Amino acid sequence: MAQKTNPGRFFEDFTLGEEIVHATPRTVTEGDQSLYTALYGTRFAVNSSAEFARSLGLGGAPIDDLLVFHIVFGKTVPDISLNAVANLGYAGGRFGVPVFAGDTLSTRSTVIGLKPNGNGQTGVVWVRSTGRNQRGEMVLDYVRWVMVKRRAPGTDVSATHDCPPSDLPKAVDASDLVVPTDLDARGFDFALSGEPHAFEDYTPGERIDHVDGMTIEEAEHQIATRLYQNTAKVHFNQLEANGNRFGRRLIYGGHIISLARSLSFNGLANVVRVAAINAGAHANPTFAGDTIHAWSEVISADALPGRTDLGVLRLRLIATKNRAAADFPLKDADGKYLADVVLDLDYTVLVPRRG
Amino acid sequence: MAQKTNPGRFFEDFTLGEEIVHATPRTVTEGDQSLYTALYGTRFAVNSSAEFARSLGLGGAPIDDLLVFHIVFGKTVPDISLNAVANLGYAGGRFGVPVFAGDTLSTRSTVIGLKPNGNGQTGVVWVRSTGRNQRGEMVLDYVRWVMVKRRAPGTDVSATHDCPPSDLPKAVDASDLVVPTDLDARGFDFALSGEPHAFEDYTPGERIDHVDGMTIEEAEHQIATRLYQNTAKVHFNQLEANGNRFGRRLIYGGHIISLARSLSFNGLANVVRVAAINAGAHANPTFAGDTIHAWSEVISADALPGRTDLGVLRLRLIATKNRAAADFPLKDADGKYLADVVLDLDYTVLVPRRG
Amino acid sequence: MAQKTNPGRFFEDFTLGEEIVHATPRTVTEGDQSLYTALYGTRFAVNSSAEFARSLGLGGAPIDDLLVFHIVFGKTVPDISLNAVANLGYAGGRFGVPVFAGDTLSTRSTVIGLKPNGNGQTGVVWVRSTGRNQRGEMVLDYVRWVMVKRRAPGTDVSATHDCPPSDLPKAVDASDLVVPTDLDARGFDFALSGEPHAFEDYTPGERIDHVDGMTIEEAEHQIATRLYQNTAKVHFNQLEANGNRFGRRLIYGGHIISLARSLSFNGLANVVRVAAINAGAHANPTFAGDTIHAWSEVISADALPGRTDLGVLRLRLIATKNRAAADFPLKDADGKYLADVVLDLDYTVLVPRRG
Repeated sequence: MAQKTNPGRFFEDFTLGEEIVHATPRTVTEGDQSLYTALYGTRFAVNSSAEFARSLGLGGAPIDDLLVFHIVFGKTVPDISLNAVANLGYAGGRFGVPVFAGDTLSTRSTVIGLKPNGNGQTGVVWVRSTGRNQRGEMVLDYVRWVMVKRRAPGTDVSATHDCPPSDLPKAVDASDLVVPTDLDARGFDFALSGEPHAFEDYTPGERIDHVDGMTIEEAEHQIATRLYQNTAKVHFNQLEANGNRFGRRLIYGGHIISLARSLSFNGLANVVRVAAINAGAHANPTFAGDTIHAWSEVISADALPGRTDLGVLRLRLIATKNRAAADFPLKDADGKYLADVVLDLDYTVLVPRRG
Repeated sequence: MAQKTNPGRFFEDFTLGEEIVHATPRTVTEGDQSLYTALYGTRFAVNSSAEFARSLGLGGAPIDDLLVFHIVFGKTVPDISLNAVANLGYAGGRFGVPVFAGDTLSTRSTVIGLKPNGNGQTGVVWVRSTGRNQRGEMVLDYVRWVMVKRRAPGTDVSATHDCPPSDLPKAVDASDLVVPTDLDARGFDFALSGEPHAFEDYTPGERIDHVDGMTIEEAEHQIATRLYQNTAKVHFNQLEANGNRFGRRLIYGGHIISLARSLSFNGLANVVRVAAINAGAHANPTFAGDTIHAWSEVISADALPGRTDLGVLRLRLIATKNRAAADFPLKDADGKYLADVVLDLDYTVLVPRRG
Repeated sequence: MAQKTNPGRFFEDFTLGEEIVHATPRTVTEGDQSLYTALYGTRFAVNSSAEFARSLGLGGAPIDDLLVFHIVFGKTVPDISLNAVANLGYAGGRFGVPVFAGDTLSTRSTVIGLKPNGNGQTGVVWVRSTGRNQRGEMVLDYVRWVMVKRRAPGTDVSATHDCPPSDLPKAVDASDLVVPTDLDARGFDFALSGEPHAFEDYTPGERIDHVDGMTIEEAEHQIATRLYQNTAKVHFNQLEANGNRFGRRLIYGGHIISLARSLSFNGLANVVRVAAINAGAHANPTFAGDTIHAWSEVISADALPGRTDLGVLRLRLIATKNRAAADFPLKDADGKYLADVVLDLDYTVLVPRRG
């Protein structure tokens, strides 16, 4: 009669190079996409309309890229971050083949870095996690690192070399992006999509205030996080939260990413695809009742090798809580995030060229 | 580097006769219908059961008519009512071919009336909006008029004639209703549908208290309104609402229509289809925490030309907040809506005849 | 112009042996399953992944068994329990053929017991309810009994014999369980499913604390209960609840069952199917804001006749409110349920054998 429940892994339980098979696979359906729409109000044309997607050569409307991210990520939580103290960062996130309703996603992770912290209480674990569909095709591949508690105090670990892993890119290169086979944006209908702006209209350094704001309710973030089968307990258990330093359930950081991206429609309506997540910081925690605003900065605008129909925008997406974003809030004079900045995401999208 | 975000149209930005193509098309799925059921508890048999719908000759369960309304309507918000001061009325709403899961809906509007207000601050815009499926077939056609802010004070506008448009019907005539091809209600199963009442059992002037009440939560109306991709900011942003005269997020009027219609099952269970929306007033605002009750009055009961299986009921659907409807509350002695009346909807349905 | 609305049945309106056809049939879709996942965070592999289900010989991922229960049950509410004072018990619940997206469920009930209470105000009604799919195949069959108000005080009723019905089983026998045709668990993948525990690892008397807790919001239980088209008004109407002894909307007992079962994943991840509901008590009411924890006891572990791939576990699932379950709370010294115990469910599941 062994211990039946999952206590989560502690720092000592990870081995460099080990591959972890995450439970449980998940078939993504139109119902999931409906819920995603209802939770964030997203309306990017290619994900909203099967007809629009077909006009670009796709077989139907792909599942929203960030819904794919959340599902692939959610699988890793019971094995990687159940005893995490902090979610430290993301790097090298690349979206692969598009996901369509009916596809089944599963995730595996490889431990690529381990570093005990000097305090002897925690260590940092780097994992590369790969989500695949039922045909084994990569749908998302990314690195994240988390600070995890030790089971017992100490500082030594069998393998601590290569930390942070030396091949972590600062950003995914345009030539490494996966462009869905058959995607052809030459006939892109800017009127149906919502805005007249094409790739050529965006300039590095340009800042866009996305204007609108959205207030989060407890039921909403809980419904979202459970949809992703993310089991991190800090999001669901108020009884336990009564004893934490906030006295509140924490909102899953990915919920803020999706809210901010949905708000970004106002100014970035014509994004065809999220192609990469280069880096990300959850700068401050959010709670139910917070109102989220967002703004974006164009980091760079690059050609997509071999293509005249699509360009690559690398964007910085900033979300705030309880503060409008018209003045582009970010950091204070000391380079610290302002207290009302909650997200700083570096990601890459494909946008149609005017041609 | 042009302005990237949508500031919405002001009164001066509308031109009589102009056609507006609304973004973004939306494929309606079984997931949307599930959410609609979960948000309102609707259980009209023809929309609830594909088998029941097939027993009436249809190819499957049509998407709930009011879900179609909300999606078609939601598309118009960014172009028509982002700067609206008030949603003044509806007329001549006709439902066309039924919508099934997998259909893609898009909306276009034609400006059919423009009238500057004497105060020089606002004007009234009349639009006819038409929702179509991917085959170009009309699924909903209706007129609404809204009061919109001017960009700059003034009273003149290039075209102000024909206001209100002279061809607005008081109610859609029974002979103008669209009856779905193949719909045959001769074998209608009143036991499975929920009530024994047929068309012959309803009498003009009859009032029905729908008895049940439902309390609205913030998360519910937000999830609903986002499902419809309706972007009207008053429904989502508490930070901004803190500064309005209510200090609250306003609930989308269509949410109340759907709640009231769902409550109307108790007394009108056998409605096969909403065929027309003749007129409607959102008499008072609603907020989270309000409990909605509803009652109906039969305005008229008419034969459906050429049909013996279906009859036409024109109904008035009244919703209240925080007050039961057993005494049929409506207006005060001066003809003003009572403060707890929130909806007065004039609509037309198809009901099976006993034969 | 007869009374149009459903007043519900009183004790005198039931006749022994009578069969009641419940409205309205319901086509279950992938959207319903998505919502179910989002409401409870359930992630049992066979329901989560069509690929995993196919690896066990099934045609696809079956709809979650308890979602089937709630839909079949919900149909009975308008006819059986609209005037119920209390839901007294369940017995002999057997799940039949699995339900897949696209199936249409309907429910009929037979009155199998009637007993007036001595106070002359109420009586107890026993019904056997059977849910069937569009092919007439049984998907769920169970007995429940409820205390119902009398229309007029009295103690006599035409037929009061056989109460409680003499053939009510204490638990469904392993030989009476329905095992889905084609289900073959020989290749069961314990890694993908989430835990290494097979049937052989569970011991009668073993107790499992499921560790995690989940806090319920008003929007969540309302959305769930409406998804099931359950119309019991105590769950939805705060205006009326203001006058009840709690001053609160009561949460549907089935919502707690589903929450507790979802929490039970942690320790019982490899359950392939809920096969029977033997008995159940909603020990105390729950309200929004309550945090639910759960623990299980293995009542018995039996072979499944003729099968080497699956074993039968009879389980007791206990849920608490606002109290962790590590100390297995249940009853006080007098045998009364503790005030923070809210569910005591006796049910039977199929679990893969290691072989």
